[in-house]
This record gives sequence, structure tokens and C-alpha cells, in this order.
Amino acid sequence: MIGGLHHVGIAVDDLDGAVERYRRTLGIEPVHRERVDDQGVDEVLFDVDGGAIQLLGALGPDTPVGRFLSRRGPGLHHVAVVVEDVGSALERLRRDGIALVDEVPRRGSRGTRIAFVHPNALGGVLVELVEAP
Amino acid sequence: MIGGLHHVGIAVDDLDGAVERYRRTLGIEPVHRERVDDQGVDEVLFDVDGGAIQLLGALGPDTPVGRFLSRRGPGLHHVAVVVEDVGSALERLRRDGIALVDEVPRRGSRGTRIAFVHPNALGGVLVELVEAP
Repeated sequence: MIGGLHHVGIAVDDLDGAVERYRRTLGIEPVHRERVDDQGVDEVLFDVDGGAIQLLGALGPDTPVGRFLSRRGPGLHHVAVVVEDVGSALERLRRDGIALVDEVPRRGSRGTRIAFVHPNALGGVLVELVEAP
Repeated sequence: MIGGLHHVGIAVDDLDGAVERYRRTLGIEPVHRERVDDQGVDEVLFDVDGGAIQLLGALGPDTPVGRFLSRRGPGLHHVAVVVEDVGSALERLRRDGIALVDEVPRRGSRGTRIAFVHPNALGGVLVELVEAP
């Protein structure tokens, strides 16, 4: 069902500080910054060959990333994989009784259509399905 | 310094059960299984376009993944990125005062040379550097 890895999402306490830290440590440059109100995050993307590293700052404590940060602290938040059509991927998962966060696709950054599969479906790992624009 | 995403490493309680769960949910097939004694894990790899999903079962409670599982439960464990030469990448990081888990490269699965950067260096994220064979 899935193509390659699209990005890894990393929850951070201090977005600007984290951008600088990743930039210097891994020798990569941020290429995109976007506020996704729907998800309650400011995100910064570093493109790497064939994928991306995404840093996520919470817009407030009562957002999914805000709650993740207070529960677990900063760290790996989710892994995103490419699907051809997020709507039909969701349909297939629903038919198989897989727990979903999103029943219908929503808008991700950079014009993508996305949906999250529930961590219960994949042993505690939050997986995002991404359909390129 | 880095190329693309090489794989995401996921700590699991029950390796065979997790393989089946990932296979069915994401529609992917395992391509490789290997015991890496040095890291105290049995690992199973699913190749996806340009990268891989790696499931990690601990060989015992007193291994890095065993301790991770008892502290945090199953979930995302690390992200691995491609480097051209892991030795010179480590040298550059050491020169910049970046905290490392591995001071010298060691053997990873499928003939790779690898080294882990300390999670303190990257806001709680364990990053593995991978040099392809």
C-alpha cells in the first residue's frame, strides 16, 4: 500500500533553537516553514534526499504536540509514508478494522493531503499517510 | 553532511507479532532478518522506496532496546540517515563538540558501518549515521 518514507516528525520545545541545532549538527538547511492551525503546530522542514526531517513546535499546551511534549518530552513524534491516494488508503484500512485518527483526509503542509493512523494499530507508532499534491 | 533517510527504527515487544501487524496494515513485506549481537537486537527490515522500516526486538531486558521498552514502551526508537563516510562524519561531529554514543564506527545490519549520535545532541532524538557497504 505504501511508497517510501516521506518524513519523520520530531516534537521540539523551542522551534528556532531546534532548527539551529539540526542545521549545525547534521549540516542541513531548512527549506520551508508553515503554520498548520488544523494540527496546532508550526513546522519547519529540512529536505534530505528523497524525504524530509520535520520539526514541530506546538501552538499551545492543549494541542496534540503540546500534550505529547508534556507527557513524553521532545523527541520522535511520527513517521510519514507516501501513499498514492490517501482517501482509498483510508478506505482500505477502515475495511480491515484498523484504528484511525482521521476518518477523512485533511490538509497537510505544502499542499499535501494527509491522514493519521492510530498508534494502537502499529504498536505505539503514530503513522501519517501523505499524498503528494 | 547527511544524505537521505536510511530507515526508521521501531522498538517492539513481540517481533513476530509486529512483523505481521506492519505487513498487514501497511501492505509491505519483510525482506531481511538479522541478529545484531553487538546492539542486543533481532531486527527485521521492510524496504520501502528509497528507505526502510526496521523493527527491533530486544535480546534481553539489559540491552539498549530492552531498557527503552521498559522505560517508554514500544514505539519509535531512532532515525537513521545516510552519510558517505561514517568515520569522517564522526570526526567532524567530535570536532564540533557534539555528544556521541559511538566514538568509532561499528557494524550494522546488511554490511553497513554505523554510529549513533547522542540524543542530547538533537533534542532527545537518537540519530544513527549509516554508511552503505
